[in-house]
Order: sequence, then structure tokens, then C-alpha cells
Amino acid sequence: VVLVRPRNPLNIGAAARALANFGFTDLVLVEPYTKAFAEAKSARAGAALLKTARLAKTVAEAVADCQYVIGTTAGTLREPELPLEALADVARDLPPARAAILFGSEKTGLSVEDISYCRRLARIPTVPEAPSMNLGQSVAVCCYELVRGHADLTPLPVSTNDAATIADRERIVSAFVPVLEHVGVFLPAHRSSQTRRLRTMILRWQLSAADARLLLGVGRELTRVLNLRTGKQTHGNSPA
Amino acid sequence: VVLVRPRNPLNIGAAARALANFGFTDLVLVEPYTKAFAEAKSARAGAALLKTARLAKTVAEAVADCQYVIGTTAGTLREPELPLEALADVARDLPPARAAILFGSEKTGLSVEDISYCRRLARIPTVPEAPSMNLGQSVAVCCYELVRGHADLTPLPVSTNDAATIADRERIVSAFVPVLEHVGVFLPAHRSSQTRRLRTMILRWQLSAADARLLLGVGRELTRVLNLRTGKQTHGNSPA
Repeated sequence: VVLVRPRNPLNIGAAARALANFGFTDLVLVEPYTKAFAEAKSARAGAALLKTARLAKTVAEAVADCQYVIGTTAGTLREPELPLEALADVARDLPPARAAILFGSEKTGLSVEDISYCRRLARIPTVPEAPSMNLGQSVAVCCYELVRGHADLTPLPVSTNDAATIADRERIVSAFVPVLEHVGVFLPAHRSSQTRRLRTMILRWQLSAADARLLLGVGRELTRVLNLRTGKQTHGNSPA
Repeated sequence: VVLVRPRNPLNIGAAARALANFGFTDLVLVEPYTKAFAEAKSARAGAALLKTARLAKTVAEAVADCQYVIGTTAGTLREPELPLEALADVARDLPPARAAILFGSEKTGLSVEDISYCRRLARIPTVPEAPSMNLGQSVAVCCYELVRGHADLTPLPVSTNDAATIADRERIVSAFVPVLEHVGVFLPAHRSSQTRRLRTMILRWQLSAADARLLLGVGRELTRVLNLRTGKQTHGNSPA
């Protein structure tokens, strides 16, 4: 469970308690307000779990070792990059992979950048008149839904597959953006939105770790070859 | 939703907010601590709903007009008067009746007396190590479960027929094989097996038609750039 930029210590504590209630142990906080995190740690609820919570500087760092990332939304995004799916449907179809579920900040939810790391976007079926849930409550509902089908609460199967991790995929993105800009498919002026689009696309692919190594190798070789052959004067190369 | 002897104003507010989130409107408080109720009313979350909340002196009064009452428990009752059932099972079998769902106080849960009004006892599947949920969160989980099967999400913008065709994918394979050989990732000696591997990989990817166009464009641009800039000396080609 990844909380992205949480602000309220009560919510951090409530989220930790919900994880504990449903047998989850791995909580990551991305850029929490320092004071909020300190206050949450001193609170009783979920205290044990908060002691082992990890801090991350970015969403990329938080989910680097995961193979599958789910975003959550109140359904108020204007133009979601991914189709909104009912939380129950997302939970039912989860692959046996190391997965993360992201929750945005209380005020703004997940950003477009945060969502670009997600394979699926889960919506809790709130009503249009009051779509936005309290953070601690939405964590509780999602944790509940994730264990709901496994009533015996046996530990979920740990990943045995060799799917590429988010970090593997992010390296591919980083390798290809300069190549795509070099050949004019991407424009430097639109780098961040096009990087997000590339990330979103590559996250959808069913890449094995070996596939990821191949793609990364391609990206790096292309970078090398393009630089070697053409120098580095992108958009205006002269023959070597 | 009936809260029996709630003590914490934050929990009362959180419960009210959860009701609003899932479209419930009828909240009854049995013997709330007066101060807690006053504080909760002054809070923002769920404020509208708290204004219409009813106060009752006893559980009997709170559920008098109901036809069916469900109790909730963390499963820590020593000798429950009713069998504990999974929340999901209780929600699934609800009769078409005016129903109430009871939540006990934060400290003690529902009393034996409270439970005597209940037809069924629902247990949220928390783990034995941390069975007791926060009141606001357990109300959220129960409200979620009650609407879960009836969620009327707006149709998802998923298009089932814009997936890339096999032909789209094969064009990508054809465009990339020469590029991969050029940069040394593929060896011409193993062209047919490596082409199969690339095809297998790309067939697994969940590509839309637009994704396929982008990838094909990339392949073609790379071919063009590599040929233009480097001549065609690779593997026996001579400069154009």
C-alpha cells in the first residue's frame, strides 16, 4: 500500500490500522508531510506497522520492486488515462504478482504523473453526490476488497513469475525517450506527457524480465549507435 | 445504520461521511456521548447527513420500524448468540426488507442485549492479530459491501475492438528486425528464430491500434535514420 503525499496524521494512522486489520504489512509513504508522519508514528493505532513503513521520494521509487500497480480514484478525474474499473473487478483479476495499490493525497488524489505508473485504475463505487472518501476509509475498503475473496485469509501467493518489475520498465522508458526524440517521433517540447504515454504503454505490456532486458538492450544499443554514427546534434545531424 | 453508544466525535463524523459516500441516508445514534455528538455535528465531513441523524434512547427504539437487523462484530465475542457469518455472505442474502445494521461502541462492541435484536451477525474478515477495526472504517467497509453488488458505475470507456491486429503487429516485427540486427542485438545468422521470438513477444503485448501505429512509426523512423546517417555499410551494404 502506497500513500502518495498524505497530509493528515490521523489518516496515516488509520491507513496503517486498516493494513494491520486485513493482514497487510508493507506500507510506503511518498513525500508525506514530515510533521504528519511524526505525529502518526506517535499515535497508538497501527503503531507497529508504521514503525516498519518505508519512506520514498517518488512514486517510481516506491513501486520499483513491484510488477503490477493499481491506482485508486474517486472517479472525478476529468480525462483518465486508463479506464475506470470497479474495485471489485480489479481485485478479482489480480495476477499473481508483487503488486502495489496507490492512494493519492487527501486534497488532490493521484496526479497524472502518479497514474502513469499504474496498470489499472480502481474506482470505489461512491455516489456522484459524495464521491470523495476519507483516505483512511478508502484504504480500509480496498484492503477489505483485496482479502474478501480469500475468506480464510491464508497469505496471498507470493510472486513466482518472472514478470518485469516497474524499475525494469522505467529503465526502458528512460532509454527510449532520447531515441524517440532523436528520430522525431517525440518532441522535446512535449517530453513529460509523451514520457507518461510511453510509460503507460510499456506498463500494459506483458513483459518478462528477459523481454525487459532485450528491450533495454535495444534502447541502449540504439542510443550508442545513434550517438556514434551521428554525433549528438539532434535534429540537424551531419554525416560523421 | 445504527451506531450504538459511539464515543468519539471523529468516528461519528467518519461514519456519516461513509454513509454519504455510498448513498445511505438514514443514520441513528443510540445513546451517543452528548459531547461527542455535538462535536461531530460541528465537523465538516458528513455534516449534512448528521443534521438529519436521529437520536434514540435504546436499540429497540432505533430499529423499531425495521424488518431485519444485522449486527456487526470483530469476531471477539466469547459466546456469540448467533453464528458469525462473513459480511459478504450476509450482504448477498439480504431480503427485500427495511433493514438496519448495528455497530457497537469503540470499546466494547455490541452487547449481548444489542445482539438479541439481530437476525444475523456479520463479521468483517480481519486477521486474528488485529481483529478490531476503527468504527468509521468498519462502517465504510460495510456500506461498501452493501452497495458492492449493485454498483451502477457509468459505462467504462473500454473499447474492445481497437486492439491491434495480427497484421499490425507483423508490420512492427518486420520494421524492427533490420534495426535490431543493425545495432547488433539480433544476429543475422539466427534471424528466423529471433524473429519468432520478437513476434511472440509482441503478440503478448496488449497493444491498441494507436500503440501499434506509434511503434511502427518508431521502427520506420529508426530504419530511415540509421540508413540515412550511417549509409548502408552494415553487413555488406555500400553507401547510397
